[in-house]
Amino acid sequence: MVNQRMLGLGTARSVIRELFEYGKQRSAVVGAENVFDFSLGNPSVPAPDAINETAIRILKEQPELIHCYTSAQGDAAARQRFADSLNRRFQGSYTADQFYITVGAAASLCCVFNGLTCPGDEFIVFAPYFPEYKVFIEGAGAKMVLIPPEIEHFQIDFDALERSITPHTKGVVVNTPNNPSGVVYSRQTLEKLSAVLTAKSQEYGHPIYLISDEPYREIVFQGFEVPWVPHIYKDTIVCYSFSKSLSLPGERLGYVLVPGDITDAQEVYAAVAGAGRSLGYVNAPSLFQQVTSLCCDMTADLAVYERNCKLLVTALREMGYHVAEPGGAFYLFPRSLEPDDVAFSQRAKDFDLLLVPGSGFGAPGHVRIAYCVQTERIERALPKFKALADSYK
Amino acid sequence: MVNQRMLGLGTARSVIRELFEYGKQRSAVVGAENVFDFSLGNPSVPAPDAINETAIRILKEQPELIHCYTSAQGDAAARQRFADSLNRRFQGSYTADQFYITVGAAASLCCVFNGLTCPGDEFIVFAPYFPEYKVFIEGAGAKMVLIPPEIEHFQIDFDALERSITPHTKGVVVNTPNNPSGVVYSRQTLEKLSAVLTAKSQEYGHPIYLISDEPYREIVFQGFEVPWVPHIYKDTIVCYSFSKSLSLPGERLGYVLVPGDITDAQEVYAAVAGAGRSLGYVNAPSLFQQVTSLCCDMTADLAVYERNCKLLVTALREMGYHVAEPGGAFYLFPRSLEPDDVAFSQRAKDFDLLLVPGSGFGAPGHVRIAYCVQTERIERALPKFKALADSYK
Repeated sequence: MVNQRMLGLGTARSVIRELFEYGKQRSAVVGAENVFDFSLGNPSVPAPDAINETAIRILKEQPELIHCYTSAQGDAAARQRFADSLNRRFQGSYTADQFYITVGAAASLCCVFNGLTCPGDEFIVFAPYFPEYKVFIEGAGAKMVLIPPEIEHFQIDFDALERSITPHTKGVVVNTPNNPSGVVYSRQTLEKLSAVLTAKSQEYGHPIYLISDEPYREIVFQGFEVPWVPHIYKDTIVCYSFSKSLSLPGERLGYVLVPGDITDAQEVYAAVAGAGRSLGYVNAPSLFQQVTSLCCDMTADLAVYERNCKLLVTALREMGYHVAEPGGAFYLFPRSLEPDDVAFSQRAKDFDLLLVPGSGFGAPGHVRIAYCVQTERIERALPKFKALADSYK
Repeated sequence: MVNQRMLGLGTARSVIRELFEYGKQRSAVVGAENVFDFSLGNPSVPAPDAINETAIRILKEQPELIHCYTSAQGDAAARQRFADSLNRRFQGSYTADQFYITVGAAASLCCVFNGLTCPGDEFIVFAPYFPEYKVFIEGAGAKMVLIPPEIEHFQIDFDALERSITPHTKGVVVNTPNNPSGVVYSRQTLEKLSAVLTAKSQEYGHPIYLISDEPYREIVFQGFEVPWVPHIYKDTIVCYSFSKSLSLPGERLGYVLVPGDITDAQEVYAAVAGAGRSLGYVNAPSLFQQVTSLCCDMTADLAVYERNCKLLVTALREMGYHVAEPGGAFYLFPRSLEPDDVAFSQRAKDFDLLLVPGSGFGAPGHVRIAYCVQTERIERALPKFKALADSYK
């Protein structure tokens, strides 16, 4: 007699985890170098040296700075550094008290969803989407409304969006650069989204918040722009994490930025902090509040992702795969070569290619390739992709 | 239009925080050395040197071990070290897969409450109690049932307990050594509690789980025993944190232990893990999973707490204060010298003594003294306590 929803969440092994486990078994048979596991979004490049150096310096020279409780919203100096960095980069005028430092992006999202949700509220999510959104939104007691994918470019199907916004819509989530598609929303897409949300907010007489989940903000390729969302739509709440930009996913450090000019900004900030308290987040890990804030203008060496992406996209298209143009992150989301993406993923295993079916991301007929691996592995995987394509001829 | 409960939690400044802020203002007037702030339970001794040394060694020599995602339940080697440590100390036979590593004690409790709660469930808590229990239990959708304090020794009022257990009782929370009383439950108390819960579980045909919240387990004074609760009551779930034993409250590292022999152990473990997922806890901070597990048999130099305790108890009793015998932690919980503890706390401020009213802990007529400060400060505070007592004569 435990909570049945929690039991389900704790018992159900995700498709990604299944593939990962299969990969480990298969590696034992054919050798790890012969299994092309593209299932996990774990950064393949190490954290910048400055991260470890900064941590060591603080541990040696300023031990009094760390290990203590910080205030619940995070250390004031760390929040000031985050504000300064964004102000420099995006010509903002954010202040330290608009930041709530969190235990990573998942915590950022949970604090926002729990802070905002009133009974009956809905959040709109665009497919393809990161499947834990559903877990977090439902955990907050809200309903997730899914907009089907616009499968040519993975921008937004605005007709479907307009039909789905109701007086119950509390917020809309965007994730650009996107997991799982790698696509970056264009400025035009974001401006149109802003226009729709502005009109609907006016029509219903209450704000529709745009929740910009942007852990991949720094992983963007030449020729692409990741616009600063709060400059395009006023009622934007930013959820950030250093997991991908600094290759620190295990340390769990991110923030929520509640800009001071959004509707009911002070109430929203207080509710986000209250949610953090209710969910048991006392404060984000203290050492890494210092380390990430002192290194927040750096990134890991992200060039490998762009190299891998170009290599894969060019080769896959030559082989006849359809791939929407990726602009960042470290995912590709090609169409499966048969309508049933689960069957396609299954057949790919015959070639030791581990690809995640798109159904779990709300976009059947596609598979996700997480190419955050060594380039050499991509090169050796290309003949396998070719053989897979040939098997359909 | 944000969530009103979260708004309340994020807006209401706690009494403790109010006192702390008052202390800062008062310090500006009379000097920090003349304000005797006993409001906060922040460990006053530094973490053992081995903590920083271990962290530095890993950062320098084994960077590949850290910064990555770990499995959601925590790194397998870290869990094995926690199991080995408890097995050595308490003659247990715990295994790594019974541990779920968490982002500190608050996260441990939230995962357990959320994992266990079915509609209509209640959790019993004994006053005096840590007030965030109510936040966490209600956050999980359950009801907190408070048992009034047994004010002579702060053990358990078993008549009140027996009257309060119903078929809705999912669990009972104990916190020994206790915040705010500093009292340790005797073996006799725990055995009697076990007998009551066993009988009631049988009567109702379902287990009543005992949730043992024990962040102060290692802070215990000469002549006192902190019994290992799972050996006394079978259906015990242990919530632990290294915040106090290793003086690491800011790093957020703890665990839930779901012993394999409790009723529905596998379901409980899965539900705890599922709750962690739903609440946005992806994994506990990776570097400190390694550091705490490599140092889990150590403690900070806790001797100062016992020294402070003896000094205070002896002096306060001589001055006429009534203090239940403390056995550990770093709190004293004397009776206020007038029935209204809030008025008493207010009067104490006239003597620059910052004491937290007991009402917030469910025990009016008392105040909490957090004596995790330098001994010198205790010595200088004694004349103030004397003057406060004299003011009532």
